[in-house]
Amino acid sequence: MLKSPEISALHTDKYQITMMYAHWKNGSHGNRRAFDLYFRSLPFGNGYAVFAGLERAIRYLEELRFTEEDIEYLQSLGEGFDPAFFDMLRNFRFTGDLYSVPEGSIVFPEEPLVRLEGSVFELQLIETALLNFIGYQTLIATKAARIRHVAGNDVLMEFGTRRAQERDAAVWGARAAYIGGFDATSNTFAGQKFGIPTLGTHAHSWVQDFASELEAFRAFVKAFPDQAILLVDTYDTLKSGIPHAIQVGLELKKQGKSLVGIRLDSGDLAYLSKQARKMLDAAGLTETRIVASSDLDEFTILNLKAQGAKIDSWGVGTKLITAYDQPALGAVYKMVARWENGKWEPTIKISSNPAKITTPGRKAVYRIIDNQSGKARADLITTVDETIDESKPLTLFHPLQTFKRKKVKNFRAVPLLKPVFIQGKNIYQLPSLSEIRSFHQSQLSLFWEEYLRILNPEEYPVDLSQKLWDTKQNLLQTIYQSIKKENGGS
Amino acid sequence: MLKSPEISALHTDKYQITMMYAHWKNGSHGNRRAFDLYFRSLPFGNGYAVFAGLERAIRYLEELRFTEEDIEYLQSLGEGFDPAFFDMLRNFRFTGDLYSVPEGSIVFPEEPLVRLEGSVFELQLIETALLNFIGYQTLIATKAARIRHVAGNDVLMEFGTRRAQERDAAVWGARAAYIGGFDATSNTFAGQKFGIPTLGTHAHSWVQDFASELEAFRAFVKAFPDQAILLVDTYDTLKSGIPHAIQVGLELKKQGKSLVGIRLDSGDLAYLSKQARKMLDAAGLTETRIVASSDLDEFTILNLKAQGAKIDSWGVGTKLITAYDQPALGAVYKMVARWENGKWEPTIKISSNPAKITTPGRKAVYRIIDNQSGKARADLITTVDETIDESKPLTLFHPLQTFKRKKVKNFRAVPLLKPVFIQGKNIYQLPSLSEIRSFHQSQLSLFWEEYLRILNPEEYPVDLSQKLWDTKQNLLQTIYQSIKKENGGS
Repeated sequence: MLKSPEISALHTDKYQITMMYAHWKNGSHGNRRAFDLYFRSLPFGNGYAVFAGLERAIRYLEELRFTEEDIEYLQSLGEGFDPAFFDMLRNFRFTGDLYSVPEGSIVFPEEPLVRLEGSVFELQLIETALLNFIGYQTLIATKAARIRHVAGNDVLMEFGTRRAQERDAAVWGARAAYIGGFDATSNTFAGQKFGIPTLGTHAHSWVQDFASELEAFRAFVKAFPDQAILLVDTYDTLKSGIPHAIQVGLELKKQGKSLVGIRLDSGDLAYLSKQARKMLDAAGLTETRIVASSDLDEFTILNLKAQGAKIDSWGVGTKLITAYDQPALGAVYKMVARWENGKWEPTIKISSNPAKITTPGRKAVYRIIDNQSGKARADLITTVDETIDESKPLTLFHPLQTFKRKKVKNFRAVPLLKPVFIQGKNIYQLPSLSEIRSFHQSQLSLFWEEYLRILNPEEYPVDLSQKLWDTKQNLLQTIYQSIKKENGGS
Repeated sequence: MLKSPEISALHTDKYQITMMYAHWKNGSHGNRRAFDLYFRSLPFGNGYAVFAGLERAIRYLEELRFTEEDIEYLQSLGEGFDPAFFDMLRNFRFTGDLYSVPEGSIVFPEEPLVRLEGSVFELQLIETALLNFIGYQTLIATKAARIRHVAGNDVLMEFGTRRAQERDAAVWGARAAYIGGFDATSNTFAGQKFGIPTLGTHAHSWVQDFASELEAFRAFVKAFPDQAILLVDTYDTLKSGIPHAIQVGLELKKQGKSLVGIRLDSGDLAYLSKQARKMLDAAGLTETRIVASSDLDEFTILNLKAQGAKIDSWGVGTKLITAYDQPALGAVYKMVARWENGKWEPTIKISSNPAKITTPGRKAVYRIIDNQSGKARADLITTVDETIDESKPLTLFHPLQTFKRKKVKNFRAVPLLKPVFIQGKNIYQLPSLSEIRSFHQSQLSLFWEEYLRILNPEEYPVDLSQKLWDTKQNLLQTIYQSIKKENGGS
């Protein structure tokens, strides 16, 4: 007997089960379909996003099955499900194809990040979980990358577990933060699960546990003589915490050791850190580092650095782990093609909002890189069967403002989507987490700083090939004509 | 051999492990301490919060152990931990006392929601997970209660899984939303785990899967003749979706059945729902309900209702499950007392921000209810050993603006904290989820509407007893004096 999957097959929306049943009743459950997973706009006003969550999605698809308990639960709902339907569920395995950009990739709105092909039966079931996993990790990796952008080479620590939206957010958020450029997490479970370095100092309660702050500091460095970081704001940062930390630092010096750091967790971090630096240096503790925490994000760090704050290391919690200023990516998963009569037919979803009209058909994504500068010029979405001739000039145009055109020469076109599952078989060589993190860092150098800055970045072009653009326009026309005809030409 | 706990003991901050070790090295790990878990300010500008997350916390504390894998991981970190420390972890069990307000309670800032007593060793370990679980569910139950407040008796469905911050947020968020007043969730795993009713309709992809919208609708009602809700905005709501739904509804009528509903998922929901209602009624489908979804929250629902939108049932996703406008409660966990020399000594954490100074000592919380009106007048926090004489007038005063005083007569004082664990043993009779939900609803009637409205509610008084207030002032004075003395009286 197989062990239960870590993620329940029931971790999905009820309507997926409902549609699976309706397809099965209708005999259409085996229909071969293609779906794209993507997002429509960038979070936080950033110029790019950092793709993450694929490894979680892969494990889910590999283990995905309905247990007998799951089936009993569905039977108990009294929805009138035909009993033979449950045999379909008992035998359910993911048997589709999945193409994805690698984790750590720099990605943009409207381009397929994951492309799926398989039976509509299976592709409906998995929609919800894929969006849940990939949406969250991509969001947090992107937020982390913004913070890394302003922090330069400072140490960045993810400290958010207590404020995360339940356990998985803390754990997978720590992973995503690491991909986006953080150096460590406070969550030891994430450390164990993913091999991320873990860091921590001590809490106010450590200090309160002792009769005096000085006694508390002495007891802590006794336990950790080589790696103590002392929290100095329990009573009064400048009058009590820092003087006591210095006293203990000098005592350590006499033993030939040194105080690794102090942590500021409240108050005016710019002022306090400058005072702390002066006081530490005056006492000869020039090697003692200053760690700051206290509702930090990319804007407070940028401002503190602009004010000349003397902070070496940043602990970032709530604002990172919840993506406080935009707590959802809003990823979507849309049907783009139907296999009918021996060929793929593009399909479209229309909206009164042009930005919400889907781009039909099975697609490839290329990053067009200028050979001379080594920088990315645009991403180009094509139909899956197009080839790009790198020896000829390529004309790119804006998919909505089509008069905006440019010609690119001397370029290479790097395909972004890689095969991960073929007919349900995982053929992907998963990179290690540190490889993913390095890959992300390496990708940043492909982009001009105008796209990377955290405030008002330039919009990076994501264009459609002429063929794909034509397909979309033709399909739109066909559907509008048909609606018009049904409404008596009105 | 015990099975592994569902929640790893390592789901905590590294500094908890660090402090546990330092206490053990120092011989102070058995120190008996008391901690309070509370929040400092209300989310969303609401007038109250809805406490939730206790059941999750109870299961965690019951199962909490370090596995051999956990210990191997900690050993691998090279932190210089003394090997004997790991025997402490191997034998670790939660042995403390825990008092909590029941789930579904209406609660306010600064009052202890959970009070813990035990060894500092165990109380440090569990801090992070308790804040993670209780903070999130309390946040979502509160958001759900706001939405219920404006929705009246309409059906409310939690549809957020795909946008939730990973799996646990979806699952425990669905539970919290149910406590706060939602009727159902789309997440079938949450349905299975908690017995919450599950609901769902179908997606745009269902419509796209067929050659025409009409064909798609017919196939869906064939599978679910008694409970079909048709999504009408895939191509054009008024010109295509609703006319096709009506056509299918009339076909159902001929079979003596009726179309349960249509769902609007985009566009101007006020206008479209009114048009839809007219079109359905004109066709004789007066029983067909209108369901709306599309980035809804308490403000959009309030506005749609004010515009006379004809919506019977609301599907709420992203804005609820992520608590979009404030994605963290900011709950804290502070040491409040130390058992020293045979008695409890209050302890305090000071801050330059007066709102962040903790209230020392082991505390009880009473809800003061006016016997005449049946309404709550204030919550009163006392020391744990005080008694309130209901036969005498009670003077209440604001803990910061102490001149604000009122005298209460003819009242009852209802204690809010209930014993849950005593010496590590769970003595609490867990209510069922539907009991929790009913309890929450019943509690609302204790409060005047001024405290319950979603915009600019009155501030409900949470006062300190004179004895507790004095304890706090005295402790503050003692510490300030001691800092002054150390700084040469400056």
